Amino acid sequence: MASRTQPARGMRDFLPADVRRREYVIRVIKEVYESYGFEPLETPAVENIETLLGKYGEEGNQLIFKILKRGEHERSGEADLALRYDLTVPLARVVAEYQNQLPPFFKRYQIQPVWRADRPARGRFREFYQCDVDVTGSRSMAVEAELCAAASDALERLGFSDFRIRLNHRQTLTAILERAGISVEQHESALVALDKLDKIGVEGVARELAARGISDEAAHRLLGFFEEISGLRGDERANHAILARLSEFIGEHEGGKRGVAELQQILCYAEASGVSSRLELDPNLARGLSYYTGAIMEINVPDLSGSLGGGGRYDNLIGMFLGRDVPACGFSLGLERIIVVMSERGMFPPELDRASVDALVTIWDEASVAEALALARALRQRGLRVDLYPEAHKLGKQFKYAAARGIPFVVVLGPDEKERGEVSVKDMRTGEQRAVRREALAEAIKESLVTF
Amino acid sequence: MASRTQPARGMRDFLPADVRRREYVIRVIKEVYESYGFEPLETPAVENIETLLGKYGEEGNQLIFKILKRGEHERSGEADLALRYDLTVPLARVVAEYQNQLPPFFKRYQIQPVWRADRPARGRFREFYQCDVDVTGSRSMAVEAELCAAASDALERLGFSDFRIRLNHRQTLTAILERAGISVEQHESALVALDKLDKIGVEGVARELAARGISDEAAHRLLGFFEEISGLRGDERANHAILARLSEFIGEHEGGKRGVAELQQILCYAEASGVSSRLELDPNLARGLSYYTGAIMEINVPDLSGSLGGGGRYDNLIGMFLGRDVPACGFSLGLERIIVVMSERGMFPPELDRASVDALVTIWDEASVAEALALARALRQRGLRVDLYPEAHKLGKQFKYAAARGIPFVVVLGPDEKERGEVSVKDMRTGEQRAVRREALAEAIKESLVTF
Repeated sequence: MASRTQPARGMRDFLPADVRRREYVIRVIKEVYESYGFEPLETPAVENIETLLGKYGEEGNQLIFKILKRGEHERSGEADLALRYDLTVPLARVVAEYQNQLPPFFKRYQIQPVWRADRPARGRFREFYQCDVDVTGSRSMAVEAELCAAASDALERLGFSDFRIRLNHRQTLTAILERAGISVEQHESALVALDKLDKIGVEGVARELAARGISDEAAHRLLGFFEEISGLRGDERANHAILARLSEFIGEHEGGKRGVAELQQILCYAEASGVSSRLELDPNLARGLSYYTGAIMEINVPDLSGSLGGGGRYDNLIGMFLGRDVPACGFSLGLERIIVVMSERGMFPPELDRASVDALVTIWDEASVAEALALARALRQRGLRVDLYPEAHKLGKQFKYAAARGIPFVVVLGPDEKERGEVSVKDMRTGEQRAVRREALAEAIKESLVTF
Repeated sequence: MASRTQPARGMRDFLPADVRRREYVIRVIKEVYESYGFEPLETPAVENIETLLGKYGEEGNQLIFKILKRGEHERSGEADLALRYDLTVPLARVVAEYQNQLPPFFKRYQIQPVWRADRPARGRFREFYQCDVDVTGSRSMAVEAELCAAASDALERLGFSDFRIRLNHRQTLTAILERAGISVEQHESALVALDKLDKIGVEGVARELAARGISDEAAHRLLGFFEEISGLRGDERANHAILARLSEFIGEHEGGKRGVAELQQILCYAEASGVSSRLELDPNLARGLSYYTGAIMEINVPDLSGSLGGGGRYDNLIGMFLGRDVPACGFSLGLERIIVVMSERGMFPPELDRASVDALVTIWDEASVAEALALARALRQRGLRVDLYPEAHKLGKQFKYAAARGIPFVVVLGPDEKERGEVSVKDMRTGEQRAVRREALAEAIKESLVTF
């Protein structure tokens, strides 16, 4: 019996046109990140299991793919390794491990797959690529501004014009919850409810807060504040108005004041970086991961319910590996989400749909295979990308193959032309077929490729 | 206590200069493969465990990394998924799954990591990249010739000039063993011994054959033949002399005769493809994997005991997934091995050692951060790759950072220059520093980059 042939649940195969689209997006993102001075890093897909456990919260731990011990230990059923869950924890490990080799500010980008045993859904897979860009070693808000500018440039270069970067701060969020009268132990629970504000509205969140044991008074104060904030949105000067109201609500809360000051500075620097029109202060943005300590960001477009990317400052994570804190801030773009939206909107260049082949050399008969191989070689030496049909099938079949792969030129080594030192070449786009001297073939194809 | 920071055993982190070297090799290999008409494929790192088990022999099964079931099943200690062990079995699965979408001849390349729980050694890691190129759907020996030519072109483009491609055929190997009088059940065992001929010599192999229960008479006949063959080597016409002797030894053995005829055809086509001078018939080349059915190839250089790559024909593997056989042949280059040799020989372009950054914009003081951000942005908009120093440290420290990263230009926004609408720019390669009008800065840097 033949084996199952589908990929594993939540994983995907990428056929050539898919790979070309993925590589196109990755190339643009890399070029933009490099234009900001970021350098590439790669880490193994597999990490020691203790590197990952305890970094992503309880839910995260559940979603980590764990690898069985090998050999005689296999029967123990224990795991000692695990698949990478994000690119941030490996970066923190790398910064700790190579601290003496890395520059004081390590500006790295990393575009690699991560694995999560999540329930698959539209745009959510169990293997997916993150495109991360991080700066370690600096507490300057210039970092936040440049990260937002780099992510924004990358999306603009891909053709996006309608995204917005929501911006918030973990410490203002904490201050708001405290000011509303919610005790520290209830903060995480309250944030889970609050995160649904856009989806289920004020009344929905109020019900959920009550269910989570938060007093009506605190819930009322909290939701009142956010209703006020949402009334400030949509105005040209919304960010500054929101910041003013935030500052007022927070009062003298120390962390909150620091958060407000940092948000203010990010907005100022973002203006210098040309990205301020993309930024939208959103005081109830929470973001799931537990390691954030300062500014947090998330990118959205209208036609996708999830985010295209997000990030934030995490000044304590590297310290979990190094023993002393190193400040850090990063941004991650989700390759799959970007591709979903670009595909639905038809944003990919059409040439990605066809094979990157300039010409097909056909086989006239069994006796001329060597000659066809030699001609293909000669054309490649002149810089052309040339496929060779491997069998002496009927010519019609060979032409059909070229058409199906979108190959623009088909070369035929017929016996009549051969006698005259010529070959026949057909332009598949115009249907025109002509005889060309063999030594002029490469140039003839190149010219037609350019002038079409 | 801080966590462990090394990567998992046998796995590696790639810092920026490492990644640039890896990407350089991958780019060259891709360009060459595409010039032969191959298209990219990507498959998931994780496969259903039954896709992999039973495809790589008993030893292979042991080396597969297995992934624990998740959630409530985790405690069962069972594995349902596994990490990709090579790129050939996933290709076979893909050809079976998408048979109606793929062209009749699927020419694909795939450059992705694979994982094997092998004992780590020099050039042998537990995570490593394979650069595979395969053609499915054709039995023509033109495929073998083009695959050898493509692998050879890739290595030449990387600067290798001293490699040789050893060539053999599974069916001639079988015929030789039979002719020597070794029973079919002992073939696999005999091949393991024979594989060590180059390392332990004729006497060593004789001892090992005896230990494996192969009769002295058979061993004598077998080794006598290989001694004769090795006497034929080193001559210009060696391949044809070896083929003649092989044909004679094999006699009327049906599979053996077919093998000889195919080898003959490969040598003829390889001449047309310009790769025949690289090919060396090696009648005792065996290759480990059990799925090969026809020609087998292996690439070696003098200064590496393992191979740089290898491949062969496997006409039955796809049938294990599809239920009907589809012929296939492929070649795999080992990225890590190539990089080991290139590093030791100093074959990498020196510019890969430094960051791909054209200029660093420094920070004069806290008050001018926004101005520096705006200048960095303006330079990037003119096509330059620009890093921004994130802190208002002493200028000397900022220059040192630029020097350590190999950044060629450093821009300083000093107050005197600012008053005149200028900035100061230092060429780190010459030490020359000059004032430039702000609007002319991008062009000035670009010119210096080109003319240096």
